[in-house]
Amino acid sequence: MPADHHAPDAALRLAQALIRCPSVTPEDRGALDVVADALRPAGFAVERPVFSEPGYPDTPNLYARIGRDGPCLVFAGHTDVVPEGEGAWRHGPYAGEVADGMLYGRGAADMKGGVACMLAATLAFLERRGDGFAGSIAFLITGDEEGPAVNGTVKLLDWARARGERFDHCVLGEPTNPGRLGEMMKIGRRGSLTGKLTVMGRQGHVAYPHKAENPIPGLLRLASALVGEPLDRGTAHFDASNLEFTTIDVGNPASNVIPATARATFNVRFNDDWTAETLGAEIRRRLEQAAGNAVRFSLDLQPSNAPAFLTRPDAFVDLVSEAIRAETGLTPTLSTTGGTSDARFIKDACPVIEFGLVGETMHQIDECVAVADLERLTAIYERVLEAYFPSA
Amino acid sequence: MPADHHAPDAALRLAQALIRCPSVTPEDRGALDVVADALRPAGFAVERPVFSEPGYPDTPNLYARIGRDGPCLVFAGHTDVVPEGEGAWRHGPYAGEVADGMLYGRGAADMKGGVACMLAATLAFLERRGDGFAGSIAFLITGDEEGPAVNGTVKLLDWARARGERFDHCVLGEPTNPGRLGEMMKIGRRGSLTGKLTVMGRQGHVAYPHKAENPIPGLLRLASALVGEPLDRGTAHFDASNLEFTTIDVGNPASNVIPATARATFNVRFNDDWTAETLGAEIRRRLEQAAGNAVRFSLDLQPSNAPAFLTRPDAFVDLVSEAIRAETGLTPTLSTTGGTSDARFIKDACPVIEFGLVGETMHQIDECVAVADLERLTAIYERVLEAYFPSA
Repeated sequence: MPADHHAPDAALRLAQALIRCPSVTPEDRGALDVVADALRPAGFAVERPVFSEPGYPDTPNLYARIGRDGPCLVFAGHTDVVPEGEGAWRHGPYAGEVADGMLYGRGAADMKGGVACMLAATLAFLERRGDGFAGSIAFLITGDEEGPAVNGTVKLLDWARARGERFDHCVLGEPTNPGRLGEMMKIGRRGSLTGKLTVMGRQGHVAYPHKAENPIPGLLRLASALVGEPLDRGTAHFDASNLEFTTIDVGNPASNVIPATARATFNVRFNDDWTAETLGAEIRRRLEQAAGNAVRFSLDLQPSNAPAFLTRPDAFVDLVSEAIRAETGLTPTLSTTGGTSDARFIKDACPVIEFGLVGETMHQIDECVAVADLERLTAIYERVLEAYFPSA
Repeated sequence: MPADHHAPDAALRLAQALIRCPSVTPEDRGALDVVADALRPAGFAVERPVFSEPGYPDTPNLYARIGRDGPCLVFAGHTDVVPEGEGAWRHGPYAGEVADGMLYGRGAADMKGGVACMLAATLAFLERRGDGFAGSIAFLITGDEEGPAVNGTVKLLDWARARGERFDHCVLGEPTNPGRLGEMMKIGRRGSLTGKLTVMGRQGHVAYPHKAENPIPGLLRLASALVGEPLDRGTAHFDASNLEFTTIDVGNPASNVIPATARATFNVRFNDDWTAETLGAEIRRRLEQAAGNAVRFSLDLQPSNAPAFLTRPDAFVDLVSEAIRAETGLTPTLSTTGGTSDARFIKDACPVIEFGLVGETMHQIDECVAVADLERLTAIYERVLEAYFPSA
């Protein structure tokens, strides 16, 4: 078994085994068994906590560690996947087929492939260091990243903290490369804030507008005020914050009736210029200014569990960058773009960077990764381990 | 029976009989029998054509005429009513109860009360002119005004035209007075045009707006362009045309997804500066100007069967005005405000004016009219008949 993990196709075989478990959130279908079965023979202590919360499905998680000393390097990831979606796959979403050098399947990129590379790299590293190494390696793997993310990494971190587990650095294996392995790692993420805007009017007949109060012109005015002027110009490590209206819904089927209410929802991806609180206050200020006395509105800012955060470039970031450069020849951009990830929770436990496969096809029909990329990502993670735990 | 129709409460009793037939479109429930039973004994030839159209319910109509000579004065109206609505009525909507001088019930104002006054006035007039009069009186009563208006007045006019019936002037008994009997008659109506606006974008994740194309800012821009500038300043007999957005619907439940499409509906009530065609062209021009090359949209203008029209003030309008002034002391405003009515169809057959009861409570819970107004409207219609058919 350990010998297999050192083979060049170890990551591919682990990725195939994971893809063949149709672990659409909150299902596990054996996916965490694949992880556990890979780690236990190498000497990891493996725990499988299941977390519960009223109103949410129970979700399985995995925590594994080898070594008790510091420093502790953590590999983090998830084995749950999004549904296969509507459309015909050329290769079965849960078949794990290889064709023309590509591994197909739901999760190939996001992020069963990444988890497989972490496992293969760690097992190869441990085998090479048969005489031990100074420090610890841990795995934080959840089955609730693509779903509500309530019974996943947040609770797994709390659980580990309560047991006295301490971490020094974390590599999260999300697919960070837009098109080519090595071009991008993430050292932070923008925050996310959702707001629901309601403009109140008074219903009436379109032929008697003076007896009614149409909320739609007011909504047009308020929404235009929010999209009309940038929130900021970006910061040293972040793009400008961006606000998108995601829906407007009046739901009035009668074209001769002026509706009573108009509702809209927007989402802001914000940088480290803001907290959810300061951003919410600024949005409210802009709405009040646009509304004046003419528009009656209410703003419901949803609780945000996604702050903006940054892992400032330091020796650890340099170490990972150098591993990427050595293997791919590319110096990765230190990016903070894209959506949220579990890194927003891990950052409270230790500095976290994200680097994984090419995400071009993630969440799509025919999600796939290059088999060669699995091998190279494994080699990059091995270089990270070698550099993080230098030989005596 | 004829003596009863001359009694001061003849209109009240006819109105009660009509209200007690729950004739919510397309139901008749005996309402047109009340009309027929009132007119036949007075010498009217009564016809009851039922019209059909695939996809619409059959609807009963009534045509009655006395006399074959010109001039022919037509009383037009409808006996169907809107549903009772949600809410508790103090007096049953189909009970026809009188309390504190008010007659309550669905249709009391719109427009069973008006039909009752036409009938009572005509019967009283005929009784007084026992020796005949020079001309004809006709009734065009439909059971499909509040509904789709497909099997109602439009077809009834076609049917009458095919039979060689010719009309000289028409009084439509819609409730034209906003608050006080005598204050307003209608000599025209604004047209109505409905448009559906769709802005096309490209779906994507809110965290990657550069990979998507949010249609909502485009919709905000286009809709703002339509509501931002008046269509006109009004004309001699009409208010300014008015555009109201009645709904915007994106229907995207996911606050992390940029939607593909945004849809809105607007309705224009337009004056005699426009036809549906010229107005549609102007709206399209404004949208294209606002869109430039930046917004992809489509505009679907619904077929309009409601043109703007005006019955120019003339001797007939003066005759009705004078009857109103003589009975109420008020000189009615010659208005073109409000919604559409069957007058938009009748105007193709002969000049038409509208005058009826006080419409304040129409379509509402506890719809009602003053019993005294029923008597005064009957007297006004009698004065119209007396003046239209002067004694030899």
